[in-house]
Amino acid sequence: MKIDIVGVDADDTLWHSEGHFHETERRFCEILAPWAEADLVSSSLLDTERGNLSRFGYGVKGFTLSMIETAIELSAFRIDAHGVEAIIELGKALHDHPVELIDGVEATLTGLAAAYRLVLVTKGDLFHQESKVAASGIADIFERVEIVAEKDVATYTRILGEMSSAPNRFCMIGNSIKSDIAPVLDAGGAGVHIPYHLTWAMERAELDTGRPRFAQVDSIREAPEAVALLSAANR
Amino acid sequence: MKIDIVGVDADDTLWHSEGHFHETERRFCEILAPWAEADLVSSSLLDTERGNLSRFGYGVKGFTLSMIETAIELSAFRIDAHGVEAIIELGKALHDHPVELIDGVEATLTGLAAAYRLVLVTKGDLFHQESKVAASGIADIFERVEIVAEKDVATYTRILGEMSSAPNRFCMIGNSIKSDIAPVLDAGGAGVHIPYHLTWAMERAELDTGRPRFAQVDSIREAPEAVALLSAANR
Repeated sequence: MKIDIVGVDADDTLWHSEGHFHETERRFCEILAPWAEADLVSSSLLDTERGNLSRFGYGVKGFTLSMIETAIELSAFRIDAHGVEAIIELGKALHDHPVELIDGVEATLTGLAAAYRLVLVTKGDLFHQESKVAASGIADIFERVEIVAEKDVATYTRILGEMSSAPNRFCMIGNSIKSDIAPVLDAGGAGVHIPYHLTWAMERAELDTGRPRFAQVDSIREAPEAVALLSAANR
Repeated sequence: MKIDIVGVDADDTLWHSEGHFHETERRFCEILAPWAEADLVSSSLLDTERGNLSRFGYGVKGFTLSMIETAIELSAFRIDAHGVEAIIELGKALHDHPVELIDGVEATLTGLAAAYRLVLVTKGDLFHQESKVAASGIADIFERVEIVAEKDVATYTRILGEMSSAPNRFCMIGNSIKSDIAPVLDAGGAGVHIPYHLTWAMERAELDTGRPRFAQVDSIREAPEAVALLSAANR
């Protein structure tokens, strides 16, 4: 089925994000160094995030609250208000990091927009994602910007319905197999995976790379050709 | 202009919300009682929220982080990890409060849906608002659910554009003059205000009640008649 709508992920597909989270976590480990080794801090933080996910969802505010909870637990209530304040400042700095586009993004999107209807699909804090989209300077290239709570089959199907299309005419480009690729393939769409050098533990997933309507490329510059091939393939 | 789309606010229009925030703030004042009077706690918390608004937006996670910051400041760094944990627990309890519909909501919406296209328009944490919409049991009555970062002229205009309509054919029903009524009137639409007995300080606003295309009613049960009158008025 010929593709008419191309979806594009934002964090770590259009601009750098996970590196900032990693750096924040590294500093968080330093704050907790009196009470726990970095490995334990990281694994405990991930456990706390997992436990809070159904309540807090994705994003910096929930991440900051999970850091504070983890600090209280690992310090056995010994962390003081200065330590808690330092964690909140880490969260604010993470929130405020500038939006830095990945090489080739703007030219590639401009080219894609000439051939397909473009929709940006990203999850996380609504307020934060909107401010990043605005700061990126590339929002106008998209017909539509969708900030969603979860990227699953139901979400993609809803978006395509609202755009008067269907998953089998859709291709998603992104760095997360779990959020950008697998649910779109499951819904009957196509996916172009662009691995990023860092992947958050909760986004890690395996995919049978022999699946139809799937391609993997090294950079966003190669994505348009992959989309065109998937669109031409008659499956 | 005849109205074809009716927008409805959620918190304190469809279900109770502000009362839960007030109760949380009351308990927060108890935690800070060793260091500050309740009045000072409330005004300091509001200042912190105001300062954080452009970064955190609306919602329980940002509110919880603002409570922690306020506690550190008012206690002059003397609050300990047990106090911080108690504040996080307040935030989680606030997040988890059950969705309790306001009297008459379901029957009124069902009636409205027979005459107009209905869209729910609410702001706050994406994840939390989605879970409240799902828990409400009334999501299916709406053609569309819009969870937005800010309720302003641009947001309402975008939503109506996506619904292939325009503000002059739109009427918004809600409890907040600032978010639900004023921007819709400014965009050329109509508004039905239903005051709630509590209003968050940041949502307080005055409106010239003599403005055209505006009505105020005491309960949601009276809203359909007000919408019909505004629709029939030829302005």
